[in-house]
Order: sequence, then C-alpha cells, then structure tokens
Amino acid sequence: MHKYLPRRCRNIKPFIAMEVLERAQFIERQGKKVLYMCVGEPDIPPHPAVTESLVQALREGKSSYTHSLGIIELREAISEYYLERYKVSISPEQIVVSSGTSPLMLLMFSLILEKGKKFILPNPSYACYPNYVNFLEGKIVDFKLKDKEQNYSEIEKLLDKGVSGLIINSPSNPTGEVLSKKELGYLANLPINIISDEIYHGLTYEGDEETILRYRDDAFVINGFSKAFSMTGFRLGYAIVPKRFVRVVRSLHQNFIICAPTFVQWAGITALKHYKEIIDEAKKIFDSRRRFLLDGLKKIGLGYWGNPKGAFYVLVDMKFLGKSSIDISLMLLERYNLAVTPGIDFGTNAEGYIRLSYATSLENLEKALDIFQRVKKSNNE
Amino acid sequence: MHKYLPRRCRNIKPFIAMEVLERAQFIERQGKKVLYMCVGEPDIPPHPAVTESLVQALREGKSSYTHSLGIIELREAISEYYLERYKVSISPEQIVVSSGTSPLMLLMFSLILEKGKKFILPNPSYACYPNYVNFLEGKIVDFKLKDKEQNYSEIEKLLDKGVSGLIINSPSNPTGEVLSKKELGYLANLPINIISDEIYHGLTYEGDEETILRYRDDAFVINGFSKAFSMTGFRLGYAIVPKRFVRVVRSLHQNFIICAPTFVQWAGITALKHYKEIIDEAKKIFDSRRRFLLDGLKKIGLGYWGNPKGAFYVLVDMKFLGKSSIDISLMLLERYNLAVTPGIDFGTNAEGYIRLSYATSLENLEKALDIFQRVKKSNNE
Repeated sequence: MHKYLPRRCRNIKPFIAMEVLERAQFIERQGKKVLYMCVGEPDIPPHPAVTESLVQALREGKSSYTHSLGIIELREAISEYYLERYKVSISPEQIVVSSGTSPLMLLMFSLILEKGKKFILPNPSYACYPNYVNFLEGKIVDFKLKDKEQNYSEIEKLLDKGVSGLIINSPSNPTGEVLSKKELGYLANLPINIISDEIYHGLTYEGDEETILRYRDDAFVINGFSKAFSMTGFRLGYAIVPKRFVRVVRSLHQNFIICAPTFVQWAGITALKHYKEIIDEAKKIFDSRRRFLLDGLKKIGLGYWGNPKGAFYVLVDMKFLGKSSIDISLMLLERYNLAVTPGIDFGTNAEGYIRLSYATSLENLEKALDIFQRVKKSNNE
Repeated sequence: MHKYLPRRCRNIKPFIAMEVLERAQFIERQGKKVLYMCVGEPDIPPHPAVTESLVQALREGKSSYTHSLGIIELREAISEYYLERYKVSISPEQIVVSSGTSPLMLLMFSLILEKGKKFILPNPSYACYPNYVNFLEGKIVDFKLKDKEQNYSEIEKLLDKGVSGLIINSPSNPTGEVLSKKELGYLANLPINIISDEIYHGLTYEGDEETILRYRDDAFVINGFSKAFSMTGFRLGYAIVPKRFVRVVRSLHQNFIICAPTFVQWAGITALKHYKEIIDEAKKIFDSRRRFLLDGLKKIGLGYWGNPKGAFYVLVDMKFLGKSSIDISLMLLERYNLAVTPGIDFGTNAEGYIRLSYATSLENLEKALDIFQRVKKSNNE
C-alpha cells in the first residue's frame, strides 16, 4: 500500500473514536444494543428553534452558494457573541464559517506550519491533531502533560527557531481539564503562533472560561456549534484568524470548501440568539452526569486523569488490567457492548487509559459503572 | 505577507468566479440589480421532495455524526445510480460522501500527487485545479487544449516518469465541451492516475455521456448533487476511489472532514430516487437556454470556444476589445451590472475570453445579449 502513497499520506492514522463508532454501529445492526460512550456527541437534541429556522431557510429557498467566508449575518452574530460573552472585539471580516471545524483546522495548520518545521502538540490531546501535522509533513514536538498537576511552564524548554506553533484545547478533549487564566495568559505570551481550539467552550462546570483572544489578538481560534449547541451532524464551525491572514484564508476556503451549507448557516444565527438558554441547559445536564460519573468511579476505586471540569470526557485509568488501551476497548465492546475510546488515540501519554464520554443518560452511566465494577471484580478474582 | 506564509500557501490564487459573485452581492446590497452569469449555479430550485425529505430527516432527529464515508443507504443509492445509468458496478465501500466535491478534490489530489512531482491540467479548465497542485507543492504541467478541435492525443508528449496524474472534466467547465467515447477510452488507457471530475454529468444536451469507470476501474471519480440536481448550497458531493485507496481515504476523511451533514445525506437519497425526472427537467431548461444563447451570440457576431454540448457555460471570445479578461469582467460589472467570469480564471489559454453561465432565465439571457450588442457596437464606433 505505502508505495502507492505520497509521503504526506503514509502516517495518517485512523481516528479510532470514529472507528469504534463505526464498529459499534455494525454490531447494533446485528440486533445488539450498544452503550455508546465513545464519541464526543451530545445526546441532547438541538434546540427546536434552531431546527425550525433551518426548515424556514430551506423553504425560503436559501440553498445557493454563500460568500466563501460565510453569510455576513452569521459572522456578525459570532462577532457579537464573542463581544457579549468574552468582551473581545472581533471584526466579522476575520471570521470564516465552514462545514464543521475539521476542515478549518487543516487550513489553520497549513497557514502556520511549513513542511519540515515543528509543531507542539500536547500529549494527550485530540486524536486528529497529529494527522494535520503529518499531512503537512511537519514534525510533531511532543509536550507531555502531567496527570495530577498542569505543567505548562515546562513548554518553554521545547521552544526553538524551528517551532512554528502550538495548539491548545480548553476545555480539553480527552482530559476535561480547563486552563486557568494564569495558564492562558502565560501561553498567549509565548513567541510562537497559537491555535486555540475552543470547541468545548460553553461546557465549563467550575470556574471561568476565557478565550485566548482576551490575551492575544493574533491567535487563531477554532470554534463551532457541535458540542455546546448539540449540532454535530449540522457540520457548522468557524475560525477567527489574525487580520493579515484573512486574504489567504478566503482564497483557500473558496478553493477547497467553497462555503458551508446555506440553510445551516441561518440555523447558526438562531442558535446564537438562544445561546444562554442552550448553554445553561447543556451545562446543567452534563454537570450532573459528570458528578455522578466521577463519584461512581471513586466508589469503584478507579482513578482518572487530572481534574475534569469541562467538556464531557473522563480519561479513566485502566492500567490495573495490564493490557493495551485498544485491547481494553475491544474487550469492552465485544464482551459488554460498551463503546469507549482507547487512550492511545490521544497520545502515548494516555496509554492504559480509556476515554469515557458522559454525553449520555444517567441510566446509561449507571450501566457503564456496573460494567466497570464487574471488570474490576473479575480482575481481582 | 508572503514571508509569513508557508510555501504551499504562497501561490494560492483567489477563485475569481467567487470573487466576482462576492463583489456583485456587495453592489446589490447598495440597491442595484445585478445580472448574474458568473457562478456555476442553477437557478432551478431543488426538487420539492428533496427539500421535504431533508425537513423530515431533521425532524426525526437525524442530526448526529454518520459513518465517515457517509450513511450506507446513500452509498448504496449512488452505487445503484452508477449501475442503472452507466452499467458499471461499484461497491458502496469505494464511495466517500462529503460536504460538496471541493474537499474531496483536495483529498484525491493528495493521494496521487507527491510533492515536487508533476500533474497534468488541461488549459482551460476549472479554476481551482491549479490551487490543489500548488497547495500540495506539485508542479503543474500545462496541457493546452485547442479551440475548434479536440487534441487529446497530443497529451502523450507530456508523459514522463515524473507525471503522477491527470484530471479531466467532461462536460467541461468552462468550455461546455463533452469528451467522445473514443477520447474517453484513449485517456483511460494512459499509464497514469486519472481523476475524472463528473460533476456536470446529467447535463449533456447532444450525444452520450459516459463515466470513465466504463473504461477503467481504477480511476478516481468526483461527482455530486450541486449541478444537475440544483443543490449547490446543500454541499453534498461524493468520490469513487479505487479499492486499494479506501482505507487511507477513510482515515483522511475522519480526520479532516468527519462526515457530511446528516440530514443532507438523507436528502441525497431522495434526489437519486427522482433522478430521471430531475435531470430531464434540468436538461430541457438548460438546453433551450443554450440554443438561445449560442444563436444570439452568432447573430451579434461573437465567437465562442469549441462546441458547448454540456454543463451550462459558454466561453465567449472578447479578444476584439483588446483588453484583459479581468478588465472586461470589471467593466461589465461596474458599467452594466453584469457579472461574468474572466477567462484567465480558467487558464492562460482562455485569456481574452469571458465565461457566461446560462443557468439563468431566457429573459436575463436576452438582457445580457443586449449588453453584448451594445459593447460590440460601441467598440466599432
């Protein structure tokens, strides 16, 4: 296989969370009931007003190409949202709307990372980040996070002339940790490009939540509607880019994406109109699940990574099984029909852990905890 | 600016058709009426059953992530469509559904073209092709098409060990020409990778229309719902890839796109159920406009490229004005509020031409012809 492929494609790894999802869907089609805790996907339905505004836009014939950066009405609404929530002023001209955040991430990395140069990725972090670097033929610089204490100040040791940038993600997938103001301020002052993946914003259950743009106006920000707004399958995301990159971002987007779906952009405006209500509701639900899950894990005697205060993930320590995280995930899926994501998907540092997504009902969490108890018990026997 | 940018982004040119559209929309917001003949966008509304099935899918809660290759029901429907229309058998496993064809094009080029290697692009052809090659740091090999006769057999002169692939597009944007069976068979036999961009399929007004897969089963095919199905803003496209590339395509898609919007995928199934009706209707409408426009141009004494038998474009020869095609387009937009695309957007070989899209009413075509007559007359005075 490899001999057919250009170098950039040879190290692209599957996104294992999606692989597990696809395998679980296959098992389900064979008549079994699967407990899904693998994918970062809220089980809360999208707000009815959002759905209805999509229907209305579609019925009004809003299904033509839009401006490649997105309809101005949505970009203005995003600008107002950042002003109201975070007190930062962003021009709608700096915003590019796309079909989810994933293609934008590729564009952002491609604007910063020259082939052969280095990019700092926290370990563990979102499974797809290394693949952006690999595709662009950059070099990954591994920044090993510590489990019980945040060690961002150690990042300075990794900086040298060959480093193009750093990506941060707070609240974090897969650890659920949230950067403090002090940490965010420190990172914003590093003399490199920073991409701040803010896709889990809105889902912070303890303490404040701040955009990097409060500390630095030339950061690249990624955000969207999938997580806090429960709109995964709508595929609606956006990036905020420094002014000097707007012209080239627009060209790249015209060529490689054209524009996000039109009626979905109109639904995005409605989502922002209702943001307080939507986010408050989501926070309340996820926070109660978080407490329930963390309590349950403690009772069983299972450890987990750090201090999960945001997003909807817990990285559970399964090292006691003495198996690889992929083997543990396969065992849980095939034997218990429980779909989870192996820690290794997020970096070597999370090997021996599995990631649980608590974007599922308390009832399901109870079932999952019961499975973990059985796994723990049978291991002790 | 350039010094900030990685090499791959330095030669990315704006997609001028989109630039003209964006400028025209700006003029329109100032209260003027613009005649749009710039973008490849059908003015026919999407079929009501398609719209309604999207609404239904959305109301049924079909808004979660799907399999990264797309829902199996749509991939099966696409497979059946290629079997019924073209008598070719494609496994649903070889199909990847995405948010329009543009991101798929980037993936296809990235699978074939190693950095520094060559890729053959017909000149003129779709404006974005060179940007895929530039982004991947390949070298463009320019294959100059001839105006009145098709000269594909000359392509063999360009083949050498450094050439990775060739892209073809029939019916063609911007010339409207359609490859004959003989030409398609000849091209399919070339000893290089071939991407066949079949996005204008369904819109061939004279003669047959065949997929390259009739002649070669390891070609890369790009197709989608934007053009013949009038679903531009839905952003729904697909690629058919050779079996040995499926695994890597799936990984790339999981990482860089995740999946196409869910409810839009369900609407795609409905579109294929009604394909005969939808395509026949579109063909009838566009063909009558094509005849009207070509007749009108002949009457005015304006020449055009080749033999436009498909898609909805005519490349009109404006060399008599002795101006660059960009200047001509700007003049038509600012003076007559007529939006067209400059030929140079499609390659040096189309300089001096402008591209008209006849995806607009006969009434508008009449107005446009009137403008051309005035331009011609004032030039003669």
